[in-house]
Order: sequence, then structure tokens, then C-alpha cells
Amino acid sequence: MCRWLAYSGSPVLMEDLLYKPEHSLIVQSMSSTMGAEPTNGDGFGVGWYGDRDTPGLFRSIEPAWSDRNRHDMAAHISSPRVFAHIRAAIGSPVQQTNCHPFRQGRWLWMHNGFIDGFHAMKRDLALAVDPDRYADMEGTTDSEMLLFLALTFGLEDDPPTAVARAVGLVEETAQRHGIRFPMQGTMATTDGATTWAFRYSTEGKSRSLFHSTDVSMLKQQYPDNPELHELSDDARMVVSEPLGELRGAWREVPEASCVVIRGGEETITPFKPLMPARIG
Amino acid sequence: MCRWLAYSGSPVLMEDLLYKPEHSLIVQSMSSTMGAEPTNGDGFGVGWYGDRDTPGLFRSIEPAWSDRNRHDMAAHISSPRVFAHIRAAIGSPVQQTNCHPFRQGRWLWMHNGFIDGFHAMKRDLALAVDPDRYADMEGTTDSEMLLFLALTFGLEDDPPTAVARAVGLVEETAQRHGIRFPMQGTMATTDGATTWAFRYSTEGKSRSLFHSTDVSMLKQQYPDNPELHELSDDARMVVSEPLGELRGAWREVPEASCVVIRGGEETITPFKPLMPARIG
Amino acid sequence: MCRWLAYSGSPVLMEDLLYKPEHSLIVQSMSSTMGAEPTNGDGFGVGWYGDRDTPGLFRSIEPAWSDRNRHDMAAHISSPRVFAHIRAAIGSPVQQTNCHPFRQGRWLWMHNGFIDGFHAMKRDLALAVDPDRYADMEGTTDSEMLLFLALTFGLEDDPPTAVARAVGLVEETAQRHGIRFPMQGTMATTDGATTWAFRYSTEGKSRSLFHSTDVSMLKQQYPDNPELHELSDDARMVVSEPLGELRGAWREVPEASCVVIRGGEETITPFKPLMPARIG
Amino acid sequence: MCRWLAYSGSPVLMEDLLYKPEHSLIVQSMSSTMGAEPTNGDGFGVGWYGDRDTPGLFRSIEPAWSDRNRHDMAAHISSPRVFAHIRAAIGSPVQQTNCHPFRQGRWLWMHNGFIDGFHAMKRDLALAVDPDRYADMEGTTDSEMLLFLALTFGLEDDPPTAVARAVGLVEETAQRHGIRFPMQGTMATTDGATTWAFRYSTEGKSRSLFHSTDVSMLKQQYPDNPELHELSDDARMVVSEPLGELRGAWREVPEASCVVIRGGEETITPFKPLMPARIG
Repeated sequence: MCRWLAYSGSPVLMEDLLYKPEHSLIVQSMSSTMGAEPTNGDGFGVGWYGDRDTPGLFRSIEPAWSDRNRHDMAAHISSPRVFAHIRAAIGSPVQQTNCHPFRQGRWLWMHNGFIDGFHAMKRDLALAVDPDRYADMEGTTDSEMLLFLALTFGLEDDPPTAVARAVGLVEETAQRHGIRFPMQGTMATTDGATTWAFRYSTEGKSRSLFHSTDVSMLKQQYPDNPELHELSDDARMVVSEPLGELRGAWREVPEASCVVIRGGEETITPFKPLMPARIG
Repeated sequence: MCRWLAYSGSPVLMEDLLYKPEHSLIVQSMSSTMGAEPTNGDGFGVGWYGDRDTPGLFRSIEPAWSDRNRHDMAAHISSPRVFAHIRAAIGSPVQQTNCHPFRQGRWLWMHNGFIDGFHAMKRDLALAVDPDRYADMEGTTDSEMLLFLALTFGLEDDPPTAVARAVGLVEETAQRHGIRFPMQGTMATTDGATTWAFRYSTEGKSRSLFHSTDVSMLKQQYPDNPELHELSDDARMVVSEPLGELRGAWREVPEASCVVIRGGEETITPFKPLMPARIG
Repeated sequence: MCRWLAYSGSPVLMEDLLYKPEHSLIVQSMSSTMGAEPTNGDGFGVGWYGDRDTPGLFRSIEPAWSDRNRHDMAAHISSPRVFAHIRAAIGSPVQQTNCHPFRQGRWLWMHNGFIDGFHAMKRDLALAVDPDRYADMEGTTDSEMLLFLALTFGLEDDPPTAVARAVGLVEETAQRHGIRFPMQGTMATTDGATTWAFRYSTEGKSRSLFHSTDVSMLKQQYPDNPELHELSDDARMVVSEPLGELRGAWREVPEASCVVIRGGEETITPFKPLMPARIG
Repeated sequence: MCRWLAYSGSPVLMEDLLYKPEHSLIVQSMSSTMGAEPTNGDGFGVGWYGDRDTPGLFRSIEPAWSDRNRHDMAAHISSPRVFAHIRAAIGSPVQQTNCHPFRQGRWLWMHNGFIDGFHAMKRDLALAVDPDRYADMEGTTDSEMLLFLALTFGLEDDPPTAVARAVGLVEETAQRHGIRFPMQGTMATTDGATTWAFRYSTEGKSRSLFHSTDVSMLKQQYPDNPELHELSDDARMVVSEPLGELRGAWREVPEASCVVIRGGEETITPFKPLMPARIG
């Protein structure tokens, strides 16, 4: 099972976000996931926004816990918006181009889960991708395919609708192939200003998704925690796994929902796939 | 520019074939290509036939001249049929799944050259691939696409016709995209019993292709060369570059030709793409 | 914690030994260790004897469970004597030269364990290595140092004594550095004809070591198991972990012992470090 | 042959320094070296100073021209002081710990050249290293050994003297081993505030070394070159190869010299090894 986190807020050193739970309350138990625990060992990736138009991207197939370059990079780059992902390969080759996050222009995309029956449906889904984008797919994963379908359906203009249509297409294609529960997982995407995260599975038993609660409230509750006080009030995280030991720090995103993080403002709305037939 | 060799004959230690020009007349100057010269440094691959139904495959993105595992493997495996390839990437990511040879079932495939305008044509070509095979493509190269098109058009039954149809499809697709000279290169394929090699370019200025001449004749000419005498009379090589210093050891394959090596018997026939329209 | 196995007997395909527990009784549950379980992910190595003077060696820092080349090699090489090792790095860099087995001439060496206080003692131990061999150490591990100390003390002539002196030197050096329990682990070495395995720790709480029991006896007990009957009667395995579900297949090597496997004959003798002072 | 550059001055994006000759006059032809030319393909490294106490370090054994992570990192990190190095391995394993620059505390070190007879002298040189630092050597190169000898002889207090003593020790050791011309190459080191570069060979035929001339003077000569005008007046580079097409931009460092760059001030002094005997 993959794991991921999406951070936005005041610039943080990636090292603090990914490696130093003792210095950063919010990610404190993330360390067990991103840093030490070797369970997810088929690739690591981090995307971040800096001064450039496109986000930076570092992906590696070395086990996350042994890559020294990554440690050093994390110790020298700070960013107000970071996507990080650890991969557990399910079938697809272990190679950089299959590591998350995926980047297209200003956008980043990552996924924890899978499309059941992907091998059988792959060609049909690929045909639905915008022909002008087809040759830009570099890897072989279902996750990258979801990004390209979402781009095809307008990700850059209206992410929730685009993702709903992408997932709808997957479900409709699956029906034709006799696959019952094709879609599983949580997805996150960002344009550098807003983060959208989705929790959905066809079966209605989706992998977990959590978001952090209001930092200012936490500051009041924990006046003696210096790490908390360095974060801006609008700092937010969305994570695939329940993290941290601080009571009240995390709130589960409901089944079949979309979370939108824009500055310090969070909105949760229901997520429902849009079948192509209904789009007309 | 990539380079490759295809050997068939009495079993040879891969080390002798790839690394020891001083011990093996036929490949003597191959060493400059496969062993030491770092010009082609974006991946190496070797496929070989042993006791198993499918050929063995070893592919690596480490520079060919620094991979110790490859040296050791080459020192311990002998085979009567070896395909070896050194890659110079043109655009596609440097990753194992983009290294030659490509394997499908009992078949191996390798290519030195490129499809001009591949990025623009990729989707059209992918759509022509047998839908049941589409999801088996693991990499992103034009070379792998050629293999899958050839498989689609009957490689396993009639390789020359299948390759002619694959190249014909590329040329027909290129016409629609306004690409003048799409096809360039030499290709080799084998089922473990016969080797087929092709030299062709749309422009009529193809990359070089050479095949070794009759070993028994060489033995007569060079009675004092012990390495030559260890090879069986039916040992043959097809190579992308003119190799060796032995006069008369190599013969150029003519432009637009197909060489078939079956045991010690070589047949050279003209190669001409078959346009889909003419197949009808 | 690292894991290893040492096989000797009739030639087996490495694939059967390392990946196919269902086809090979003796290694059946080894698969959980060598194949699938991602716990030990800092490097893999296998050494084997073939027709050459020196054993073959394949070492990789890719996670053991994702390296395709290794799978293919294992499917095409059979050998009557195989050492295989999965590494869990403790401090030393994850790099090929730190992967086991280590090879010097005809000898292979592997280790599961560590030298406590190695960083502090490293220089002293390195000074004790035969000056002519010093520059041949390629990695930075305590395990490789043990091999070089053993070589210095006569591994090639009398392995049990050489290893006893190497461990004795480590313990004597540790005393001077105030390190109480320096030595921990199991070690195996072979010259291609005999295998020696050692279980020892200064504290007397050594990591586990098991050896297989008489194959001919197993054949009688399990007349219906075809895999067992393909093995020669002198086939033997020594393994770091208790493997297999077959009752009576494995016997624990006692604390502070040396197992010698020569053909189908096993000898277990007490192992006791030889302090340099006592050697004088 | 390795290649390196050492930059100091106003913060530059590493991408501009390493990849964009068209945007940065001074490094314009460096691109042929650092970016595209695959001649030096056994490892790449870059060290840079940022907000942290110790410099950042990124080292990779992927061919310099194919590592995507490095491109991305270079596009997102700017620094006022950068060391970059491309390695051509001479014997030592191709592994991260053998890539330059080497880092110890605040110091970086890189080298283009070799110690002739290093294998024979390695133990003697290692014994001369400060025992407290011995176990910190992670790789197996002569270049790293030079750093540790220099540290032993006071690099942190007086770099020119420390390097002179390190080289003197190498030459004295070589005499005992009957090696005539042991030392060859150019070296650079920095503590983050000052850069010291050395050109020296025992034989007196040293590899090349160049430094950039006064940027303010260049600005006057080329008033229309915008890239030049973005650099601060104290920007300086020292490089192993003569770079750039701008007349007067580069000045050769004389044989047996030490260049010191402190802000915009350059000092060149003779460099002469200090034999241990003369020190005593």
C-alpha cells in the first residue's frame, strides 16, 4: 500500500516535514511511514513549489530509507507546498517514471490505490486520453492514466468535475469488461495554489484519508509546543494515513468525498463519479 | 547510435563473445563497442537461449562499462544464441524497460535506429497494435512499438512479412502526419532457432549492417588461429558495425535487405515495406 | 537482520532454490525470506560455482523483490554450490561493494550479524589485515573486515582456526576499547568444495543457525514428495533462519559451534575464539 | 579524465551554472562538459552552500546526462558557492561514496587526477590518517584519501600547508615504493567562505587549471551581454578545463600553484609539497 501527504502553508524545510517528527507535531508519526519503516520500498517521490513556474520533482527507486541524496535535498529545500509519496508497486515495473507524484505543467498528481482490472482495460482508457497528450505518458501505471484522463476532462479548469469524469469513465469501462469494483483509492492534485484530495472506491470501502484540523486551535490547546507555533495559521496537511499522537489533530475525510484546501480554508463536498453517458 | 550483435552457432561463453576480442577472432573489435568505449552509455541488454522455453534477459541502465554483475554473468553463462545491445537514448527515459533486447514469449527483438516523428505518431501506431497485446508494452520506445506491430502482423508465423507490414504501417502513418523519412535502422529478431535481420530506411540511407562469412572458409585461410577453430562451422554473427580486422570476415548487408540465418545457411532477400492499403 | 543460505549438493537451478518453495521442499519457506518479504531490503547477493576457477557473483542494491535481472539469472543458472544473502544495512552505505557474499579468489564469505563498536575499532582491525591484502577491501562493512582478518590468519589453509583467530582479535581489540560484547552473528564460507558455518556471539546469545538433516532419511519419510527425490543424497543446506514446514527437516546448530559440510557428511564442533595473546 | 568547477559570487541557480551556457557567459562551454558530452560517465556530484551549517551534497552514479532528478534539483536550488564534478573512474568502483565532492563538516573537496601506485601505497597512506578520522572514510578512492590526509595535517586551519603536507607524504611514501611520479592533478577545497585550488604533479606536467578574470572588467568590455551583468563583481570560477569563447575570460593557473579566492580577491602563490622529514 502506498502512502502520501500533501502539505500547504508557511514554507517548511522538507526535512522537517518528512524526517523530523520530533520537531514538527503535525507530521510526527509520519516518520514511521516516510522515514524508517521499510514496508513501502518500491519508490519514493516528492514534488514541491518554489520560484519556478513548474514544481520541482525528485523521484527515486532506491528504497526510501537508504537514499542519501534525498536526505540532503530535504535538508536544503523549503517550500510552502509539498507532495510526498512512497510507493508499493503492484505489478508495474519499479522505475522512476512509475513513481508519484506525476507532473504535467504546473500540476502534481498522486494516488494511493489501484484500478482493478487495469491490464484488461488499459487500452480502452488510453484511447480516451486526449490524443495530443497520449505520447506524454511516460510510465505504465494506472495512477498516471488517471491523471491523463483527468487532464483530458478538464483538470486545469475544474478539478472535481474532471476527476469525477475520469473515475466515471473507469467505472463505465469496467462494466463493459465485467469488472465489479474497479476504482479504489485516494488521490491528490494541486496547481500550486489549491490542493484537491479525493477519497473514493466503487465498492464504498475506500482507503483512509485524513486532514489536519485548524492549526490556530491546536496552538491554543498546546501553548507549550514550539513546533506548532512556527507554522502559519493556514498550514494544512492531507494524509493517507492517520498520523500523529496529538488528540484532535486529525479528522477523517468521509467516504466518497472531495477535500479542497485553499489557504487555511477547507471545504469538504461529496464526490460522485460522472458516467460518460450522463455527460452527453 | 545504438549497436548490436546477434550470434548463433556452437555455445560460446558470453564473456568471449562480448569482452574478449583477443580470444575470439570474430568479435575481436567488438570490444571497442561493447566493452570499453563509453560512447553508448544509456543502457545495455543481452538475451540468450538456454534450457528454458523462454530466453534469458539481462538489462541494465548502468553504463555498459561499469556494471560488474554483467561481467560476472557473462563469465558464467554460455549459449548457442545471443543477442546483445548497447543503447544510446534518443529522448526516451533511461530505464530498464526501454533497453533492448525486448522479449515476448520465445522471441527477442532489437533495433538500432529510430522512427522519426514518433512522438506525433505514437498514438496512431499504438492503436494498430493487437488489443490483446497493448497492455504488455512496458516501455516508451519506438523500438518496442515496432516489435508489437510486428507481432500484431504475424511475426511468429512469417517474420519478413510481419516486419514489412509493421514498417509499411509506420510509413503510411508518417505520410498522414507529413513526416518524410520516418523509418531508419537495422532490426534483428529470433525465435531461438532462426535469426532474421533487416536493414532499411525510408530515405534509402540505412545504418550499416554486416554479417560474418563462412567460418569454415576462414578456418582454411587462418589455420593458425585457435579461436576460429573452436567455433562450429555453422557459427554466424550479424552486427550493426563493421567489426574485426580479419580481411574477408565481414560482408555488408545491402540496403533494403533481410538476412535470414538458419544454422550455417544464410539467405539474403530484398526487403520492401508492405503498405496497409496494398494488403487490404 | 540479514538472512542467508548455503546450498551444496546436486546442481539446482537457482530459481528453484531461491524462488520456488513449492517445487523444492528444503527451501520451501525460504521464499518468504528471499523472495517476497520486503523486510530486508538493503541489498541482495548470490555467489555460485560453475565451470570457472572463481565463483560467479551477482550483487544488487535494488530491493531483492524487484530486481528483474536477478529473477532471470536465477532461472537460467544452475549450480551445485550456492551462497545467497539478503542484507539489512546497519549504518554502512547501501552499495554493491557492501553486499554479501564477499569473494576473494575461490572463496566466498557471508555474515548475519555485526561487530559492536566497529566504528571505534575499525582502524585497529584494518591494521591487523595482511598488508598485501589491505587495498583489496572494497567496501566499508564489519563483515568484509572479518573475511580479510580470516584470510590473514590462514582461511585458505584451516578455516576454523583462521575464523577463531579473527574473532579472537575482534574480542581482544574490543577489550581495549571497553566494548563488552563485540561479536554477534553467524558466518559462512566456502572454497567451492567444503562449506564451513559458524554460530557465535561474545555474549553467548547468538543469532540462529540451522542445517538440513539427511536427505535420504527425508526421502524415506516422504515417499510421495517428488521434489525431494530429485535432490542427491548429499544435498545439504545451512540457513540463518528456521525454514520449511517439514517436521525433522531442520536441526539447530548449537551456540558457539562450527558446522562443516563436506559432501553429504556434516561435522559439528565447538567454536571458541583464539585470542592473539594465546597464539603467540 | 574528471572535470570540475568551483563557483563563488552572487547566488546563481545551479541550472544556470551547469546547464545553460547561453544564459551564463562564464560557463557557456561548460555545458559541453557537464551537460551533454557523455565522455565522463562514471558519476556526478555537486555540493553547495545554503542556509545550513553544512553544505548540501548530491552525488549520483547515473550518467550525468541522464539523471532527471539532478536536472530538477539544479532548476530549483540557487547558491552563492557551488562545487561540481564529473567523474571518470580509474579502477575504483562506480558508487556514490566514490563520487566527488567529498564532504567533511563544512568542507568540500574534489580532485581531477590520480595517485599513481595508489593500490600499493594505500595502507601506508591510510595509517597516516588521523586515527579518529580513519573510520569516516566511506569510499575507496585516492581522492578521498587526499582529503583525509589534508584534514589530518590541518586543513581546517591552514589549507595550503595541509595540502602541501598531504602531497609531501604521498611523494615520500611513493619514494619508498619506487614510484616515480605519484601525484597528478588539480584539487579544490572550500569551507564555504574561501576557495583554495591547487595545480600540481610530481612530474611537473599537471592537468590544466583555469580561473575566471575580473567580472567587472568583462562587463565593461561586453556592455551588451545581459548575463554578465547579473553576476556580482566578486563572482569567480575556477575550472579544470579552459571554458568559454569570450576572449580574456580565462587565465591559466601556472604549474605548481595555489589559487585562493576570497570574495572578489584572487591570490596565486607557488605550491610546493612539504615532505614529512622536513616538517619534523
